[in-house]
Amino acid sequence: MFPKGFKAGGIRCGLHKKEGKKDLALFISEVPASAAGMFTKSVTKAAPVLIDIEKMKKGGKISAIIANSGCANACTGKKGKTDALSVCSETEKEFDLQKNSVLCASTGVIGQYLNMNAFKSGIKKLKNALGSSKKNEEESVLAIMTTDTFIKKAFKKIKTAKGEITIWGCVKGAGMIHPNMQGLHATMLSFIMTDAEIDSKTLQKLLESSAQQSYNCVSVDGDTSTNDTLIILANGQSKTGKLSSADLKKFAKALDEVTLSLAKQIAKDGEGATKFIEIEVRGAKTKSDAKAIASTVASSPLFKTAVFGADANWGRVIAAAGRAGVEFDPEKTDIYMGGFLTSRNGMAVTFPESKAKKALQKKEIKVVIDLKSGKESSKYYTCDFSYDYVKINGDYRS
Amino acid sequence: MFPKGFKAGGIRCGLHKKEGKKDLALFISEVPASAAGMFTKSVTKAAPVLIDIEKMKKGGKISAIIANSGCANACTGKKGKTDALSVCSETEKEFDLQKNSVLCASTGVIGQYLNMNAFKSGIKKLKNALGSSKKNEEESVLAIMTTDTFIKKAFKKIKTAKGEITIWGCVKGAGMIHPNMQGLHATMLSFIMTDAEIDSKTLQKLLESSAQQSYNCVSVDGDTSTNDTLIILANGQSKTGKLSSADLKKFAKALDEVTLSLAKQIAKDGEGATKFIEIEVRGAKTKSDAKAIASTVASSPLFKTAVFGADANWGRVIAAAGRAGVEFDPEKTDIYMGGFLTSRNGMAVTFPESKAKKALQKKEIKVVIDLKSGKESSKYYTCDFSYDYVKINGDYRS
Repeated sequence: MFPKGFKAGGIRCGLHKKEGKKDLALFISEVPASAAGMFTKSVTKAAPVLIDIEKMKKGGKISAIIANSGCANACTGKKGKTDALSVCSETEKEFDLQKNSVLCASTGVIGQYLNMNAFKSGIKKLKNALGSSKKNEEESVLAIMTTDTFIKKAFKKIKTAKGEITIWGCVKGAGMIHPNMQGLHATMLSFIMTDAEIDSKTLQKLLESSAQQSYNCVSVDGDTSTNDTLIILANGQSKTGKLSSADLKKFAKALDEVTLSLAKQIAKDGEGATKFIEIEVRGAKTKSDAKAIASTVASSPLFKTAVFGADANWGRVIAAAGRAGVEFDPEKTDIYMGGFLTSRNGMAVTFPESKAKKALQKKEIKVVIDLKSGKESSKYYTCDFSYDYVKINGDYRS
Repeated sequence: MFPKGFKAGGIRCGLHKKEGKKDLALFISEVPASAAGMFTKSVTKAAPVLIDIEKMKKGGKISAIIANSGCANACTGKKGKTDALSVCSETEKEFDLQKNSVLCASTGVIGQYLNMNAFKSGIKKLKNALGSSKKNEEESVLAIMTTDTFIKKAFKKIKTAKGEITIWGCVKGAGMIHPNMQGLHATMLSFIMTDAEIDSKTLQKLLESSAQQSYNCVSVDGDTSTNDTLIILANGQSKTGKLSSADLKKFAKALDEVTLSLAKQIAKDGEGATKFIEIEVRGAKTKSDAKAIASTVASSPLFKTAVFGADANWGRVIAAAGRAGVEFDPEKTDIYMGGFLTSRNGMAVTFPESKAKKALQKKEIKVVIDLKSGKESSKYYTCDFSYDYVKINGDYRS
């Protein structure tokens, strides 16, 4: 499934405390690739994020991404940065890559240094683990997972006048998920590779726009990480040459599908989640109004626990909407939960409660908020708030 | 404990579905009183809030507050407003009060109409339930409680040149608690009564300032209600006359103590809470910076679940601080949890983990974030996030 000219691999080197857990991944292109990226907006940026931002400012081509789980290399000061730089240069040396052509990413516990001995031995070990088979694909994603419970990946092929192009992407992230990246907004590690030929400036634009309708529409717990990283590499190895503007549109559409699929997978795998929730706000005056309301409802613990309890508690939906900082008329607003109209014009309607309860016991729940005041709409993806969220996060570090 | 010239009472009339639960309270002054108030900033304001805001704009004296639990009278359209007005006028009639001199407040399920027959019979029943004994005091607070697990009240006496003044306050609120009131910011019902003589304009100023350091510094779940109401009545029955500016200062200080005590009690009784958490941000450049960081940490589910697990996970504290939208230098920041320095200059320090765990198993936890960049500080009060939060809110309505 990998685009042409890319390989990946994932191994265990001992960075993650869990016995046997793969913890080091490499995504590598056989030729230097155009790159674009988006990173956490947090003031407390982790060392790998700081390093990547600096590298990408220089605008050079990128050959590989080295990423680990188990340790976030965040809140680690100067030593953290030195370590992150060293991780990149060791990878460059080991795989005979140009200087400054490797990006790095880390996820895991905050405030601990990377185990550099383990890391260095891991880089050597990766040499024999690289490939483009389904096994390689899965191993690389497994190696960046933390509390994730399944492998999250997506791919898409596009036919252009000059041949086929592939986009492949993966994402890791189940907790500390909430919109807050530079330009974009999300919280996770996500790497996308394509064999299309696209310059890095165009790539950056496409990525930012694509993130707006995907990663930027996901919330698990309203928390934002120190390590959020989204990188796309385009190596041109499809040999289809520079894309025509029609093909570029096709590419953009396919990229949107890949990132949206990945974003939804994050919500489905939210820490402790038992249900995937799609919130659609319709009939808003502006897109940003719609998004602000959808985001506020998606982040409401009261709404999310109600969905966990399969309770068609539309009052919590409208209460959350009301505090989104957006002016709208609650007395014109309709709410649908699990396919049932639960309130019209801001007031209760009679609906079959037991049927609604059944609908809300399903794995995928849709909530629609129709403001009936305009033509704009926006969707947001989240999950319910369960006992297991508390369990997972009450125990995570210790 | 009541200030002179005030009575209160609480009875059951059947508005709350729980058998035997008191659900209707009246707070009444024997003479019309100066009044000040603050209300939810939500777009979806409940009917009693809309009615109270209109009444207070007129600036007349207020004689009583009638408040119920079990039904929020929110999202109830025109009928909701008519009901709320009728509740007030029935109270005026029954207790022979001036027109427009009664305020009302409701808390409970959203989207249901008040049972007006029950309400009207309740108002009559209140006549024999009024008094100023400890029993009356407790019954009136019990009647406005919902998921609260204990009675939250506070009082303070001040000696002035001309005699003694009393301030008494109560508050109800355990869930849907997060700063968002007009000028102030909180989420609850809180009624304060004093026998001081203060004009309503001064009273409004004092109330708003007092709320800034109390209700505005509490978060339980980041949710904001449709019904937030804070009202203070001053009836002058201490007969100490207009306060001197020195006495007014004393009064302000006492009011601050009463509201702070009530605010802390809200956090202590947060839904499912097993621990009270005080977050202090020190060394900030501005007060609003300090408050923004304290508020963001207080609202972080990851931080709150870590405290539930007695985990000195300072990484989650600094990660939450980092996304507060405030510029600060993480590499200068120190964090203390449960009295232990857990990180210095944004990096881990060695601390006795098992002792820290023990400290975090206590009922009251203090977290200090020292930015070491200025002289401003701010405190915020919250509670941990437990299994019971999920249980309470997964089941609340059904």
